[in-house]
Amino acid sequence: MAATTQDRAGAKAEFDAFLAACPSRQLLGRLSDKWVALVLAALGDTLRQPGCDEPADARPMRYSELSRRLVGVSQKMLTQTLRALERDGLITRTVTPTVPVTVTYELTDLGRSLHGVMIGLKDWAEVHMGEVLANRDRYDAAAS
Amino acid sequence: MAATTQDRAGAKAEFDAFLAACPSRQLLGRLSDKWVALVLAALGDTLRQPGCDEPADARPMRYSELSRRLVGVSQKMLTQTLRALERDGLITRTVTPTVPVTVTYELTDLGRSLHGVMIGLKDWAEVHMGEVLANRDRYDAAAS
Repeated sequence: MAATTQDRAGAKAEFDAFLAACPSRQLLGRLSDKWVALVLAALGDTLRQPGCDEPADARPMRYSELSRRLVGVSQKMLTQTLRALERDGLITRTVTPTVPVTVTYELTDLGRSLHGVMIGLKDWAEVHMGEVLANRDRYDAAAS
Repeated sequence: MAATTQDRAGAKAEFDAFLAACPSRQLLGRLSDKWVALVLAALGDTLRQPGCDEPADARPMRYSELSRRLVGVSQKMLTQTLRALERDGLITRTVTPTVPVTVTYELTDLGRSLHGVMIGLKDWAEVHMGEVLANRDRYDAAAS
């Protein structure tokens, strides 16, 4: 989204997620995950005020904060998601040698560049939820 | 994205995907699917010219066209994805009584409103693929 037309044209010549063998197909599959969307939303959303549409500013979050924010996420799933995001370079993990040790996570510049897309997806689901529920009722009524 | 601040504030009071029991959490999970992203991208992308960044215009696509566009998708997965999108009101399915019958799919207005987000996700994966691959190499080298 932030890329210029030239960047996009260049990248599009190289990678194409419509193709099964392209690595971007696998990356699209990895990013298409509600926990990825929610972790990126939470990390970029820490200073967003309720009712305020200003771009989010980010501060590091502890593992325990993330775990509370993403209600219902299992420890295994959160740990796995954070490790994959760190490996892809979307977040950094910082260990501070306090007693006990403090572990914090923060968006990288690359992670920030994806944050807007992920917030867009989460917002879309929340804004259009009522409409989708009405469509499902209509579909199910017509099918029965 | 297309929603006004007022819409969003209203919807946010009602639905919150950070909460496990909110229906928008389940909807976010359903939309977080590479086949959903690729179907919406394909249906909205039919008239986009290579190297051209103009907003896509859409035309109906046949099942067989979609199947060719999404290289490697199984018939079961494509059928299942299309049915779920139709139930949610994101696409329409039209049967024309030719011999043999012609079945076409097209984005609804609701589907068009999600198309931009999904193209954003697909483009992000394609544009940043090289950077992500380099980050993975760096992470794996540091870990070993």
